Amino acid sequence: MSRNLKATLSYDGSEFHGWQVQPNLRTVQGTLAECIARVTGEQVLPQGSGRTDTGVHALGQVASFRLDSPIPDNNLKVALNDVLPSSVRVSLVESVKGEFHARHSAKAKTYRYRIFRRDICPPFLARYVFHDPSPMNEEAVMRASAHIVGQHDFTSFAASDPDRSGRIAGVVGAGAGAVSVTALSNVRTIHSSQWMRTSEELIYDIRGDGFLHHMVRNLIGTFLLVGKGTLKIDDVPAILQARDRTAAGPTAAACGLYLVSVEY
Amino acid sequence: MSRNLKATLSYDGSEFHGWQVQPNLRTVQGTLAECIARVTGEQVLPQGSGRTDTGVHALGQVASFRLDSPIPDNNLKVALNDVLPSSVRVSLVESVKGEFHARHSAKAKTYRYRIFRRDICPPFLARYVFHDPSPMNEEAVMRASAHIVGQHDFTSFAASDPDRSGRIAGVVGAGAGAVSVTALSNVRTIHSSQWMRTSEELIYDIRGDGFLHHMVRNLIGTFLLVGKGTLKIDDVPAILQARDRTAAGPTAAACGLYLVSVEY
Repeated sequence: MSRNLKATLSYDGSEFHGWQVQPNLRTVQGTLAECIARVTGEQVLPQGSGRTDTGVHALGQVASFRLDSPIPDNNLKVALNDVLPSSVRVSLVESVKGEFHARHSAKAKTYRYRIFRRDICPPFLARYVFHDPSPMNEEAVMRASAHIVGQHDFTSFAASDPDRSGRIAGVVGAGAGAVSVTALSNVRTIHSSQWMRTSEELIYDIRGDGFLHHMVRNLIGTFLLVGKGTLKIDDVPAILQARDRTAAGPTAAACGLYLVSVEY
Repeated sequence: MSRNLKATLSYDGSEFHGWQVQPNLRTVQGTLAECIARVTGEQVLPQGSGRTDTGVHALGQVASFRLDSPIPDNNLKVALNDVLPSSVRVSLVESVKGEFHARHSAKAKTYRYRIFRRDICPPFLARYVFHDPSPMNEEAVMRASAHIVGQHDFTSFAASDPDRSGRIAGVVGAGAGAVSVTALSNVRTIHSSQWMRTSEELIYDIRGDGFLHHMVRNLIGTFLLVGKGTLKIDDVPAILQARDRTAAGPTAAACGLYLVSVEY
């Protein structure tokens, strides 16, 4: 009798070519699959709550997978941490209902973005923050970010994703074969979008029911243009309405981004 | 007219094969020399306050070197940080008297050692602490470390250094050619040797007038044997008196060690 497992993990994204398994590249999903095989002898591909890109970190990524092995949950956690590189840690393994799926069952996610504001970034933080000591209207950045709370079409902040755009084209073309519009819509609900300032960092937390590819980094890139004065605080609603990626700012660096938690 | 410069720098030791320049290996000294050459066009070999081994970090390493370039001190600092990898930062560049030498002029140094005590070490700390969650009598570790304060012969805690042992043999053999005993003695004065406990870490700070090769890591390895019960607190004076490396504990992992500061 196989059982369904949910693992919560943290990782240093600078050590991996992102979450998703790729031939000949070190990925978190691939590394986790190898370690599950070493511990249990079973070949499974753990499903993540979503992909994280190269350089993006996780404090609470969630993965699900089925195992035949009767190894107790906590023993599996300990055994995985024994064989995983120190750049990936499993904080929890739980047996869950058969229908649980790390991506499909996710109800909300929280991401964090860290901007280091002092002139010199300590070498011990360099891969864990985005270093931007340049003059910035931080109050404007904070106010701009409030505009995205609620339900919006985030097309302006979505990367043109080769996988996804094919499917979107299918929907645009409608016809009998079109998949559910809900699944492919760029409408998302943002529950909170807030900055806080420490003595050294500007830290952004965003919680929503889902995020498009590069969406958090594209939002940050846009808020930072407001901070630099290139855009105005009240340009943000118009950028949302444009539904055009070119209306928004650039994609912020991956190294400042963390997947904090996934809610089910 | 060349001037003498003192640079204070921090680095992530896990990115380098130690401080000292070596053919075909990435070292801090070599990287700094290359960056000075890129900025000023001058080939110099900056002299450090001492070597740090592979994996050992620095918060305040000091290097000295002479330049003909008239570039202002602060501009040199900014220019070096522009070309150095983010794993090395220069926090200060100062013009100093001609006789200043980062190693020969040093009066005292402070090192720190960080031990992460919780079961799971966050991936973001893995290269910056030594992870030891095993049972340990921390009170005994703290008390053992008090025994080394003052002036002692630290031969039991000195690595057998191939460079140095030849010179020591010369002294043991005495004779007309012997170099100054003071310079080669294994006697050092420890001004303070103290642990503190945070919620997650056991942190050791040691300040002394000088340190032998591997001395801090060999002290830590010995204190940890006291913590495990293999040695007793009051074995430490006898280990000092033995003047024998095999009397002391093993060399603790490099990743927990930081050169904090150098006093002149």
